[in-house]
Amino acid sequence: MTNSDTESPAEALKAFFRNHASGVAIITGRSGDDSPIGFTATSLTSLGTNPPLVSFNVAQGASFYPHLVEGAFVNLHALAVENLELAIALAGPREERFQSANWHRDSNQVPVFHGATAVLHCKILKVVEVESNAVVIVQALDGFAGDGSTPLLYHQRAFIAGGKILKSNAK
Amino acid sequence: MTNSDTESPAEALKAFFRNHASGVAIITGRSGDDSPIGFTATSLTSLGTNPPLVSFNVAQGASFYPHLVEGAFVNLHALAVENLELAIALAGPREERFQSANWHRDSNQVPVFHGATAVLHCKILKVVEVESNAVVIVQALDGFAGDGSTPLLYHQRAFIAGGKILKSNAK
Repeated sequence: MTNSDTESPAEALKAFFRNHASGVAIITGRSGDDSPIGFTATSLTSLGTNPPLVSFNVAQGASFYPHLVEGAFVNLHALAVENLELAIALAGPREERFQSANWHRDSNQVPVFHGATAVLHCKILKVVEVESNAVVIVQALDGFAGDGSTPLLYHQRAFIAGGKILKSNAK
Repeated sequence: MTNSDTESPAEALKAFFRNHASGVAIITGRSGDDSPIGFTATSLTSLGTNPPLVSFNVAQGASFYPHLVEGAFVNLHALAVENLELAIALAGPREERFQSANWHRDSNQVPVFHGATAVLHCKILKVVEVESNAVVIVQALDGFAGDGSTPLLYHQRAFIAGGKILKSNAK
């Protein structure tokens, strides 16, 4: 390890998270005028199974933020390496995010992208504002999952593939 | 993708997170009697840089939980594949977690494990209780980071290595 002492707390945080890999996901919802909305996220994390909750973090300045209100429905998508283009598109210009034909609306009118490794239909339980950001807590309603494709990850400012298994706890 | 509809919301959440890979980290702190405490976590995520905040999720039943109080110091460690044994040790029996010689106490008496890819020294800002779990929000103080080892991840109940670069955004 090269110990490069960082200059400020913000720089230290950025350096830390460049080294901390994350799974890549897509979160979709709908706006007040029923337009599909969505973005690529690397902050999805489980918050227990009883009740089944998930948290993710967003900036309050994000275009998506005003639509993240208690009771709104959102769909979470876990991505595999095959979904790289989708991950890039949903991090790109807003008007181009839903140009692909590979999605439909579910019974709550929330977009579901086809080909994601797993989809979790959720309802927003709580939005906890923290400084200029927020922790959004959603409750899982139902979902479906595939059979274990190679996951898509973000690390050192790059999309990377999951690699070899080092130690399995699976029965 | 095999669409295996899951049975309950909790089962759907578990199936989703088996497919969603996470970076593996270690969080350390100290107990009331000054003993070193720590655990392996897959929920670290950035919560903005101004101010520089990080969130992680814990069960309120965890042994660590009573020590996660506002103002307490914790150290976050990003792990590389070389840290696999450390990740396994810090997820194992409590009395064995600090048996390795590869750590020291920082000026706040909080353990720092040597060899982590990056370390971020933090102070707990807020603990948000949600049902039987909690979102812990910490403020970054300072840290140091290495030069980009292969990250250690958790996916499909296994520790895996980061794989090949698919698309880089690095300048």
